[in-house]
Amino acid sequence: MPHFLNTLDDNFEAEFIALMGMKREDSPDVDAVVADIIADVRARGDAAVLELTAKFDRLELTPETMRFSDAEIESECAKVDDEDRAALEMAAARIRAYHERQMPADAWWEDETGAALGWRWSAVSAAGLYVPGGLASYPSSVLMNAIPAKVAGVDRLAIVVPTPDGVVNPLVLLAAKIAGVDEIYRIGGAQAVAALAYGTDTIAPVDKITGPGNAFVAAAKRRVFGKVGIDMIAGPSEILVIADKDNDPDWIAVDLLSQAEHDESAQSILITDDADFGRAVAAAVEKQLETLERRAIAGPSWRDFGAVIVVKDMEEAVRLSDRIAPEHLEICTNDAEDLQTKIRHAGAIFIGSWTPEAIGDYIGGPNHVLPTARSARFSSGLSVMDFIKRTTLSRMTPDALLAIGPSAERLAKSESLEAHGLSVRARLDRLNKG
Amino acid sequence: MPHFLNTLDDNFEAEFIALMGMKREDSPDVDAVVADIIADVRARGDAAVLELTAKFDRLELTPETMRFSDAEIESECAKVDDEDRAALEMAAARIRAYHERQMPADAWWEDETGAALGWRWSAVSAAGLYVPGGLASYPSSVLMNAIPAKVAGVDRLAIVVPTPDGVVNPLVLLAAKIAGVDEIYRIGGAQAVAALAYGTDTIAPVDKITGPGNAFVAAAKRRVFGKVGIDMIAGPSEILVIADKDNDPDWIAVDLLSQAEHDESAQSILITDDADFGRAVAAAVEKQLETLERRAIAGPSWRDFGAVIVVKDMEEAVRLSDRIAPEHLEICTNDAEDLQTKIRHAGAIFIGSWTPEAIGDYIGGPNHVLPTARSARFSSGLSVMDFIKRTTLSRMTPDALLAIGPSAERLAKSESLEAHGLSVRARLDRLNKG
Repeated sequence: MPHFLNTLDDNFEAEFIALMGMKREDSPDVDAVVADIIADVRARGDAAVLELTAKFDRLELTPETMRFSDAEIESECAKVDDEDRAALEMAAARIRAYHERQMPADAWWEDETGAALGWRWSAVSAAGLYVPGGLASYPSSVLMNAIPAKVAGVDRLAIVVPTPDGVVNPLVLLAAKIAGVDEIYRIGGAQAVAALAYGTDTIAPVDKITGPGNAFVAAAKRRVFGKVGIDMIAGPSEILVIADKDNDPDWIAVDLLSQAEHDESAQSILITDDADFGRAVAAAVEKQLETLERRAIAGPSWRDFGAVIVVKDMEEAVRLSDRIAPEHLEICTNDAEDLQTKIRHAGAIFIGSWTPEAIGDYIGGPNHVLPTARSARFSSGLSVMDFIKRTTLSRMTPDALLAIGPSAERLAKSESLEAHGLSVRARLDRLNKG
Repeated sequence: MPHFLNTLDDNFEAEFIALMGMKREDSPDVDAVVADIIADVRARGDAAVLELTAKFDRLELTPETMRFSDAEIESECAKVDDEDRAALEMAAARIRAYHERQMPADAWWEDETGAALGWRWSAVSAAGLYVPGGLASYPSSVLMNAIPAKVAGVDRLAIVVPTPDGVVNPLVLLAAKIAGVDEIYRIGGAQAVAALAYGTDTIAPVDKITGPGNAFVAAAKRRVFGKVGIDMIAGPSEILVIADKDNDPDWIAVDLLSQAEHDESAQSILITDDADFGRAVAAAVEKQLETLERRAIAGPSWRDFGAVIVVKDMEEAVRLSDRIAPEHLEICTNDAEDLQTKIRHAGAIFIGSWTPEAIGDYIGGPNHVLPTARSARFSSGLSVMDFIKRTTLSRMTPDALLAIGPSAERLAKSESLEAHGLSVRARLDRLNKG
């Protein structure tokens, strides 16, 4: 049974805080191991990467075979059947169209002093994308990471994907090809992150690394942050569904299970203003769990971390939702359009009962890489913004400098930074003499 | 003497790489100490913060005196003379006007299937700003961090600023007041970062922490990243000046010194296409160093890390500049306007000889918190974007779901995520039946 909470209960606040505070992830402390791996790759380059790949992935490679050749990529992609290919292509086109709208504009204007100010956006030159291997090797993740990079204008996009025992997922290679990825390496773990960050003889270093991974990958990304940019460190997935009683309990149940099946640490929460509806959904979840293929994962997730919260009205639902700051928020109410405008902290919102969250995982267009663990309070999902950066621009004229220079000089003096002030004073003196 | 390089020299590439690779900062490994401090603040809250403040700042506080009272702020601000106040107010107004233009637009559109897609931006609820104490307690930094937060719409903005031995900088308090800061605490170090991230009885937790600090502060920010958002971890400051011979060597010299005087680890580089001009600037630097107040800092910085690089033409200057990816780039050439468009990696560009970099430190309008240590390759200066986040929006209609749902189902199947597919299938079945 999941947790049942009701805001009318005296102990609701304590129960809610306990629910939010549940430690869902047991991150093993792999930092020391990862530090050694990174140091080894920095020192020995390819040789270290190859040894570690032989050890962890049971795969003997050479500098020449570390990278997938064009011929291999072609032959693997040819294994994908037409329906899967068409689905990937539709997803890629929709993701591309959405992300193309995210490109921000440059700006350049003159102010009242005659000073010209503005900024310019430019793309990161080279990016690396980590793609997990084995079971969690998702072609959709390749599209979601690679397309924003290419839309942003990244010149060189490299993928690293481990292939334990040599097993390759053809859909991952096809997704990479469709997204326009430039290089694909069959390596993984902290050694792959280190190779991307510091470079080896075979792999040129990149400027930014994104993509999900296990505890070793996460620790490696944290360690190379600063040398390169990284995206977020993602935790287990979450969904919050706000639903009124005018919903089919089976639909809401399967939506909750679509997160629960990701991971035993995933969390699915229903908030409803109707206790009977809440119980009906919970019953529907149990029923569906009887036959669900991934019940061994979804069952523990739902029973350990799942919750049904009964509220007195939807205003209360909004307030609780903002405290949860969910990664995914599905709003299945008659006034969903209106209700969504009241939400402040959420990674992605799915509006109305015809919008199951799974649409967003694959094909809607928005990115499925989203802030977890309440980080939607301060961060956003992946976007083209992760692959571009802004250069600010200033151009003074003599008049502008006469207008604002003396204040700069004054502030420099107050901070005891004499040369700062003198660099302005040298110009002002010339103007005052002229 | 600074380093002299010439791209015509045979060993230029090796010298350039050595210059770029110079370890300018000796970051002491304070991570273990910081981990203990954070754990202590999490466990004991105010009591730990007060003890650590007594120990490191030699200042006995109580929960009541930890925060500056309105009366204290008023009385400290009254000590600031009118000229300093006017300079701060002009700077604040210009910084505010620049950052107001950065607010990005929301979006909402319907695509060809009838699906509505878009995103909404919203502000972080609460932010904390670290302001160093003592000598490097800069009112300009308060403006540069606090104004973007307030422009973004942050509801609650708290400052922490250590006051060793109780010494307060009235300009810092005035800058905070002008910027609209809500709370000011006289605490610092890792304990202040921990208090902001996790909260104590006196200090409510924030969602985002920005601002510069020493090695302890940097390590603490790195550690609380994830629990809260942080800005960049800044390294020592840098300037690159690209100048042709039609410049006054004295102006360029003082511009180089305006970075060098920040820190012995700062780096000032001149790139010029005229070797004689390069020598003239170096001579002017030496001359000015004889009398500069902060010569004990600027001198070692210039001699250890300063450089004059002679190039054969300005195209070469652009290529080298992009390899350096400077924090600050001053372009003092006749075609500065045109040259700046060719630069891809720089935090801020100052265009033309009338735009000394110090204008940007105080009063130009753009932010002075900028990416150091080559991180302009992948990151941007501080902006309103650091205090807002994006929620993506999707709304399907029955027609839209019929058009794209089957592809989502197909991809879910290919990833063995059955419930994902079923959540779409449940809706499609209803539509196909209807």
